[in-house]
Amino acid sequence: MTSPMFDRIALIGIGLIGSSLAQVIRQEGLAGHISVSTRSEATLARAEELGLGDSYALDAAEAVDGADLVILCVPVGAYESVAKWIQPVLKPGAILTDAGSTKGSVVEAVMPHVPKGVHFIPGHPIAGTEQSGPDAGFPALFQNRWCILTPVEGTDPLALEKLSAFWRACGSDVDTMEPDHHDRVLAIVSHLPHIIAYNIVGTADDLETVTKSEVIKYSASGFRDFTRLAASDPTMWRDVCLNNKEAILEMLSRFSEDLASLQRAIRWGDGDKLFDLFTRTRGVRRSIIEAGQETDAPDFGRIKTEPQSRS
Amino acid sequence: MTSPMFDRIALIGIGLIGSSLAQVIRQEGLAGHISVSTRSEATLARAEELGLGDSYALDAAEAVDGADLVILCVPVGAYESVAKWIQPVLKPGAILTDAGSTKGSVVEAVMPHVPKGVHFIPGHPIAGTEQSGPDAGFPALFQNRWCILTPVEGTDPLALEKLSAFWRACGSDVDTMEPDHHDRVLAIVSHLPHIIAYNIVGTADDLETVTKSEVIKYSASGFRDFTRLAASDPTMWRDVCLNNKEAILEMLSRFSEDLASLQRAIRWGDGDKLFDLFTRTRGVRRSIIEAGQETDAPDFGRIKTEPQSRS
Ligand SMILES: NC(=O)c1ccc[n+]([C@@H]2O[C@H](COP(=O)([O-])OP(=O)(O)OC[C@H]3O[C@@H](n4cnc5c(N)ncnc54)[C@H](OP(=O)(O)O)[C@@H]3O)[C@@H](O)[C@H]2O)c1
Ligand SMILES: NC(=O)c1ccc[n+]([C@@H]2O[C@H](COP(=O)([O-])OP(=O)(O)OC[C@H]3O[C@@H](n4cnc5c(N)ncnc54)[C@H](OP(=O)(O)O)[C@@H]3O)[C@@H](O)[C@H]2O)c1
Repeated sequence: MTSPMFDRIALIGIGLIGSSLAQVIRQEGLAGHISVSTRSEATLARAEELGLGDSYALDAAEAVDGADLVILCVPVGAYESVAKWIQPVLKPGAILTDAGSTKGSVVEAVMPHVPKGVHFIPGHPIAGTEQSGPDAGFPALFQNRWCILTPVEGTDPLALEKLSAFWRACGSDVDTMEPDHHDRVLAIVSHLPHIIAYNIVGTADDLETVTKSEVIKYSASGFRDFTRLAASDPTMWRDVCLNNKEAILEMLSRFSEDLASLQRAIRWGDGDKLFDLFTRTRGVRRSIIEAGQETDAPDFGRIKTEPQSRS
Repeated sequence: MTSPMFDRIALIGIGLIGSSLAQVIRQEGLAGHISVSTRSEATLARAEELGLGDSYALDAAEAVDGADLVILCVPVGAYESVAKWIQPVLKPGAILTDAGSTKGSVVEAVMPHVPKGVHFIPGHPIAGTEQSGPDAGFPALFQNRWCILTPVEGTDPLALEKLSAFWRACGSDVDTMEPDHHDRVLAIVSHLPHIIAYNIVGTADDLETVTKSEVIKYSASGFRDFTRLAASDPTMWRDVCLNNKEAILEMLSRFSEDLASLQRAIRWGDGDKLFDLFTRTRGVRRSIIEAGQETDAPDFGRIKTEPQSRS
């Protein structure tokens, strides 16, 4: 028998991401021992019922004690207090990483509390669903997805390679980039789409001329897709907004500028301009399908009552 | 053998909607004869290859001649010219309807050309995908979806009932409402989501600080869902924007107002306000799932590599 990649992996937070990690770590035999910690007794009990770990603790420091890989899987707003809490028990040579959706703020919050000899390498798996909690996790979540690592200056190349190998063993491809660049990229591909989705669902909910029941009945025509994103965890997304403020505001202002111009084209009946924009955007979708990040099955949200007939 | 609901149904336009109608009409035996017309020889030939109709004509008037149900399935910007073209052959007692995504403009464009004795009843099936053309059609498209009819003053109740029965036979539930109200409802549930999706994909495509390949690689984190909507047919959506201008501009301005307030909350770090909005929007999604207009399967866009493990 080959020995596992890590002797002891500690997962701090056992929601969608922590639970999915626990399951893929188990499935691939990546750890000799999985220690699980979460804030609430209810979630901890559920994690234990699901058999996600080998040991369970409400005290994060207890879970981290002796671990050679520690992964923070809590909302980014909780990082600083968790980092302070576990600081005394982080052992030299251990890798400390995370799954948080922002990276600049994570470096700022955690870095000052990382003891000498501990390898702190922030990370972000670009994989997720709109669901949360330990029941939402599944081992294939990271399969065929990207994981971005944002090593800070002076990161040990061996530790970086070991963490990269870990993510590859979870099914992901690994990229590295600067924390700030990560935050800009994610602001446009993830944060802005979620904010816009939350916003449009809020707008629809507030209308007086169109009733809620009409919005719900006729949602299949486009709105539905936005409600999926807008059903994501409020704590996580509040923290993302608070922790990636600058990049989000930058992208929001670009978006609003473009929207104002589109609005003008509609107001003045500029069909050519509309047609041009609506044509250009098709290419982006084609590339995403070609890159294997989406299928071209149409209208994937609808309930299929029978297979599509095509000849 | 019972006789079919209509002796002869003419489909003008044989893209996603026309092709799906042809297939469900055939499957449910709703017509003695299906006559198909479309503008281009290529599309007509493809419709014939797929066996969608019983007769095929480039000349819409030829297809409409003798039909007791005529359904316009072309972009709404083409309605006026089609209505003029078929006017001489519309037979008294026939029902003329359509599938167009806007209704006020359709009444305006078609009404003046409807001969006495022909029952003109505008309609809109709230069902669709982002794909277009005859190959994209499938007979279950309308199943479990709503179809909105917007009868004009003086509409014959028997004709309205017959058209309603037709849509029910296609698998849909039928609602009736005023054309203007339809246009407001659809502006928020369909038109605004598509416009926003086109806009955000356009914004992402224009950035200098984030490359196109980054946008594509990391699209699984939210952006991807927008690209699906933004891959819809440009002609159809140009025509929707031009033909439902007022309601769209009204909804756009509400949306922008709300977005400005959300932007302020991000700028000032108002976590409570963000949390409140992000919580409120979850309820809308739950209602849509309960109404059977969506499944609660998570993250339906991703390529499943194995079934989700849940205990
Ligand atoms: N969801 C996604 O799509 C996604 C994708 C990539 C990355 N991420 C990132 O991954 C991390 C976890 O997300 P998730 O989706 O797994 O969240 P989740 O399902 O909501 O689980 C959150 C976990 O963090 C704990 N937690 C919440 N607030 C806390 C606090 N103030 N202090 C300490 N622990 C707290 C929860 O504990 P209790 O249940 O015991 O309260 C739970 O164990 C976040 O940083 C997020 O940005 C998420
Ligand atoms: N797609 C949806 O999700 C959806 C949902 C509900 C309602 N609708 C409405 O249904 C109608 C048809 O949409 P669709 O998705 O079926 O479109 P589609 O797949 O793009 O097919 C359009 C059809 O209309 C013909 N056509 C296009 N431009 C024309 C013109 N200027 N004059 C005459 N014929 C023209 C095309 O003919 P050639 O191919 O021969 O050029 C083709 O037969 C539209 O009014 C749309 O608003 C669409």
